Amino acid sequence: MWGMIATWTMALEGVTLASQLLQENGEIGQAVEKAICAVEDFPFYKSVGYGGLPNEEMQVELDAGYMDGDTLDIGAVAGIHDFANPVSIAKKLSGEMLNNILVGAGAEKYAHKQGFERKNMLTDRAKIHYKNRLKEMEEEQLEMKPYRGHDTVGMVGIDTQGSMVSATSTSGLFMKKAGRVGDSPIAGSGFYADSEVGAATATGLGEDLMKGCISYEIVHLMNTGLSPQAACETAVNHLEKQLLKRKGSAGDLSVVAMNAQGEWGCATNIENFSFVVATSTQAPTVYLTNRVDGHCVHEKASEEWLKNYMTTRMAPLEEK
Amino acid sequence: MWGMIATWTMALEGVTLASQLLQENGEIGQAVEKAICAVEDFPFYKSVGYGGLPNEEMQVELDAGYMDGDTLDIGAVAGIHDFANPVSIAKKLSGEMLNNILVGAGAEKYAHKQGFERKNMLTDRAKIHYKNRLKEMEEEQLEMKPYRGHDTVGMVGIDTQGSMVSATSTSGLFMKKAGRVGDSPIAGSGFYADSEVGAATATGLGEDLMKGCISYEIVHLMNTGLSPQAACETAVNHLEKQLLKRKGSAGDLSVVAMNAQGEWGCATNIENFSFVVATSTQAPTVYLTNRVDGHCVHEKASEEWLKNYMTTRMAPLEEK
Repeated sequence: MWGMIATWTMALEGVTLASQLLQENGEIGQAVEKAICAVEDFPFYKSVGYGGLPNEEMQVELDAGYMDGDTLDIGAVAGIHDFANPVSIAKKLSGEMLNNILVGAGAEKYAHKQGFERKNMLTDRAKIHYKNRLKEMEEEQLEMKPYRGHDTVGMVGIDTQGSMVSATSTSGLFMKKAGRVGDSPIAGSGFYADSEVGAATATGLGEDLMKGCISYEIVHLMNTGLSPQAACETAVNHLEKQLLKRKGSAGDLSVVAMNAQGEWGCATNIENFSFVVATSTQAPTVYLTNRVDGHCVHEKASEEWLKNYMTTRMAPLEEK
Repeated sequence: MWGMIATWTMALEGVTLASQLLQENGEIGQAVEKAICAVEDFPFYKSVGYGGLPNEEMQVELDAGYMDGDTLDIGAVAGIHDFANPVSIAKKLSGEMLNNILVGAGAEKYAHKQGFERKNMLTDRAKIHYKNRLKEMEEEQLEMKPYRGHDTVGMVGIDTQGSMVSATSTSGLFMKKAGRVGDSPIAGSGFYADSEVGAATATGLGEDLMKGCISYEIVHLMNTGLSPQAACETAVNHLEKQLLKRKGSAGDLSVVAMNAQGEWGCATNIENFSFVVATSTQAPTVYLTNRVDGHCVHEKASEEWLKNYMTTRMAPLEEK
């Protein structure tokens, strides 16, 4: 038995690659790294890696996190510039004795010394998005502020040895302040894994997801006996309720999880949240989910929807 | 009713100042900020703020976190240089709509624009510690690695309005890598607060504390009905057990917590962990705690112990 679940349709190609590895008894750590690298490398996904949208200073700043569910080892980088594969740096850091989370210039020094590939991560297409957004803000007399487009890729999975991993990679909020960090590189919020119980990962508004340590909470709920689906729904619904009560509003909260038996779950408070599943008994599949009466109903994405998704992502973009 | 509990004897003066504020119905956020600033400002505490020991490049790098238990708002900075009071920057960030966690150069830009006081945080005394440690490592042919002296100040408390806060400040591991971040600025690990339940904060080896999201876990346990003391002990003992099982060793794990009724607790896996308590019915008091058969036994520190503590901290230091 093996399995993977990942946030957003953009994970499909990566999960497909990784599932071949897992099918051949590959390690989950390698599989997840390979899958996330594929998302980081693809220039048309504008919230992860190469092609990720920049901060308010037009710099692409990247965050990634990795947790080994066997050892509970954690690695993460935050606020780094111009490295091709942040998730690989996070994975490498998880194997260090100490200094497992590095930020900013220090993280870049480490990555440099370890030989990780440098790459200018700001694409021409991302620059056009940036310039268009600046123009929009000028026209609408809006102040410079972060903007939607914060779609972290998060993946969890289990290999045939029973080892579990949770990992994330993101360029964070479009138009964020320099140095801003969301939940993605924060263990317990963006990701958490315990091979004896299960693993979870989150995407949405990091500032709100971390108020509930949502990935840790989901693993905790699975440990009390809840199915991954019930754990995800309980955690999202509870955090949303708390945010509405305390602050009057709740940001986007979407999560996926898998338990040590390879069962999976997903919950969200947005419409048509997409995710990808592949297991030893199920070929890589994209689902769309919607919440109905507090429960999330998953439907397979149609061929047409998938085609339209890629067409939209890759449509020509002109400077306004 | 009001109350505060804080990690380490070094918190005594700050907690004493803050308790006057709370006695006069002051706000817990202001009280905790004032108390932590006092620790940050004192040059002889070598793990927090001014006088904090530097990283392996002889730079003092500071982290701080702040959580408002009413709104669940979080603010944090990590890897910043030469600002006098990191906890004040973290508190300010907790009030922003977005971009609540800032790291490295981006955090410094924000603090600069907000008018926070710059200060060269590297003292002559800290330089002597650094040089002596380099010499020791040379003599013993040790590789450059982090060293004990990672004593985060963490405070939680409740004011007469029932509002709770948890906050931290640290210079992190002595001889850490540039950019290294421990648990202190990470919500859920270094600190967590929910005014409806309670608040907790941790100190010790950040790399291990975050493997169990220990502050969130303690608040969660209090929410199931455990007393702060039982919640702290359960969380420390469980995480230590998991670390020993998964990795064969466990770093220092020490925690303090308070619930919404003003009851407090503390647990540790080290000898003579010290903490400070002040409540509406108890003058500021330093306790030393030791674990006996899985339970922590707290004893008031003697006058002699306290005098010796300050003498040791302030003893002349010579370059070897």
